[in-house]
Amino acid sequence: MNPELRRDPITGRWVIVAEERGRRPNALGPPGPDRGPGACPFCEGHEGDTTPEIYAIRPEGSPPNGDGWQLRVIPNKFPAVRLGIPPEPDAPADPFFRRRSGHGAHEVIIESPRHVRSLTDLGRAGILRTVESYRARLLALREDESLSHALIFKNVGEAAGASLFHTHSQLVATSIVPLAIRNEMAAAEEYWRDRGSCVFCEMIERERAIGERLVWENDRFVAFCPFASRLSYETWILPKVHASHFESIDGPGLEGLAEALGEVLGCIEAGLNQPDYNYIIHSAPFIHADSPGFHWHIEVLPRVTKTAGYEWGTGFFINAIPPETAAATLRRAPSGPA
Amino acid sequence: MNPELRRDPITGRWVIVAEERGRRPNALGPPGPDRGPGACPFCEGHEGDTTPEIYAIRPEGSPPNGDGWQLRVIPNKFPAVRLGIPPEPDAPADPFFRRRSGHGAHEVIIESPRHVRSLTDLGRAGILRTVESYRARLLALREDESLSHALIFKNVGEAAGASLFHTHSQLVATSIVPLAIRNEMAAAEEYWRDRGSCVFCEMIERERAIGERLVWENDRFVAFCPFASRLSYETWILPKVHASHFESIDGPGLEGLAEALGEVLGCIEAGLNQPDYNYIIHSAPFIHADSPGFHWHIEVLPRVTKTAGYEWGTGFFINAIPPETAAATLRRAPSGPA
Repeated sequence: MNPELRRDPITGRWVIVAEERGRRPNALGPPGPDRGPGACPFCEGHEGDTTPEIYAIRPEGSPPNGDGWQLRVIPNKFPAVRLGIPPEPDAPADPFFRRRSGHGAHEVIIESPRHVRSLTDLGRAGILRTVESYRARLLALREDESLSHALIFKNVGEAAGASLFHTHSQLVATSIVPLAIRNEMAAAEEYWRDRGSCVFCEMIERERAIGERLVWENDRFVAFCPFASRLSYETWILPKVHASHFESIDGPGLEGLAEALGEVLGCIEAGLNQPDYNYIIHSAPFIHADSPGFHWHIEVLPRVTKTAGYEWGTGFFINAIPPETAAATLRRAPSGPA
Repeated sequence: MNPELRRDPITGRWVIVAEERGRRPNALGPPGPDRGPGACPFCEGHEGDTTPEIYAIRPEGSPPNGDGWQLRVIPNKFPAVRLGIPPEPDAPADPFFRRRSGHGAHEVIIESPRHVRSLTDLGRAGILRTVESYRARLLALREDESLSHALIFKNVGEAAGASLFHTHSQLVATSIVPLAIRNEMAAAEEYWRDRGSCVFCEMIERERAIGERLVWENDRFVAFCPFASRLSYETWILPKVHASHFESIDGPGLEGLAEALGEVLGCIEAGLNQPDYNYIIHSAPFIHADSPGFHWHIEVLPRVTKTAGYEWGTGFFINAIPPETAAATLRRAPSGPA
């Protein structure tokens, strides 16, 4: 079965049904302890164990899929969505149970040839290569008119859904804009229409003035634990100058972001004893023009506690650590890239 | 700090900030292996280790908080919300960062005096007592005009957020209706206005006709893996006769539900080798009159895989097990209460 999108007839929420994901090693159980660089398909020297690279940072003239690289982007071997599958799903149309083809791109960004866990193990230069590759892939994929949106995210550790230890990010581009992104865009644009200002810009201004939830800032970026944090130690990183699309970032912006990401992840790793975590880049869909109301940002979600039935039933999170306390803990942590 | 509700200025999503939850044993780490009945506050003989009971099924005339009971309901010792706290939050009003008092009820239903993991260990009579207690608590709490909504849910196992092994459910009643419930109600009522039928009733009819996603049914209840399952082996249990509020269920309905719950949980436990899971009762808010468009139901969510960054960023779930395959597995499992 090709991957397909299915729509819940009640809420209109889409899901991806992708049997191929079930063929991942240990797809339905814990990934088990890391077996080290010898068994890792993402390590240098194991390029033949991965799908062929679609982008790489490697010495000029060195052949693709050989060694010597600093960063590689490959199609996910067990994709949630795939390019080039027929636009129509396998099953006949049913207006009640709606399906769409699982057309899209699912890429893996391997951020280092070395078998390390975290971006912070790469130093500033390695983090900079990573965020440069994010921009490069978004700029390439937005040229494909069949794709409406791409999400870049990172899973670190078993509790965050990672199946491999070696530091990597993922990108999923789809033909439809996911519901949560549509809702967030719509809410931000409504705020802008009502008040004439960007709700994120206002939030940055208030958080910098109040100070108690601030974690870190440089000239270009600010990080804080948001007022209505869903998860304990949830931390957002935002550019200080308004921009709706991540991929519009310039060179100095990438440098400022590499510093911010290294420092904030360093605070979280040192302050919370190397927790599992996700981060997610919220950026406006390709199909949206520059938006004065939506402001791209990164949400870092440490997995310190489990989400339980209440959260699943209500979307209403119970957070035992006030963000003011969380930010104070993170500010005190010794931080920074190794 | 009293528990408080906080509103995200961007999406309007509320969260509960409840420092007291952080005082649970191992609130911020894994609960560790179960230490057995000797260390369990929910076991018979340990009634003095819990908060005083507010409801119990026990021999007529036996004193509250003594032994001899079959089921007890107590206030959660580490509540997310609490009754009787001032209606206004501690901090002054700020129209950007909105807060509300964390007024509400957070109860624990201890389903057995014995140290067992699952409802299916209790037999049909024990499951019947459990669902009877759900109805009794909902009927009592809906009399309190300060409460708009209550959610009953169950966390089984560490991956599902349970901190205690001993079989129990929880109830959280709040002054506001959580966003996910409001959205689900609104979508169902819109469907009813547009088509003149209940979307859940239609779904039941179609699933029974198609058959490939059916898991189990009796005269009064039907269980299937929904077409757009978010999680692998997600299973819904619905009453066949339309009703919007769980608490309107009658005696034969409770008996039918006890059988359905025992059989379906039995299929999941046997078919998936005792997975961790949540179940959540979706029922119309107290403040809603009987609704022709909303249909109460139970969502059972096995925690076979982890939810990763993509799901968190998008609300768009990737499911590797098509619900048709999941239902076939569950139908083949030897099931039923012990």
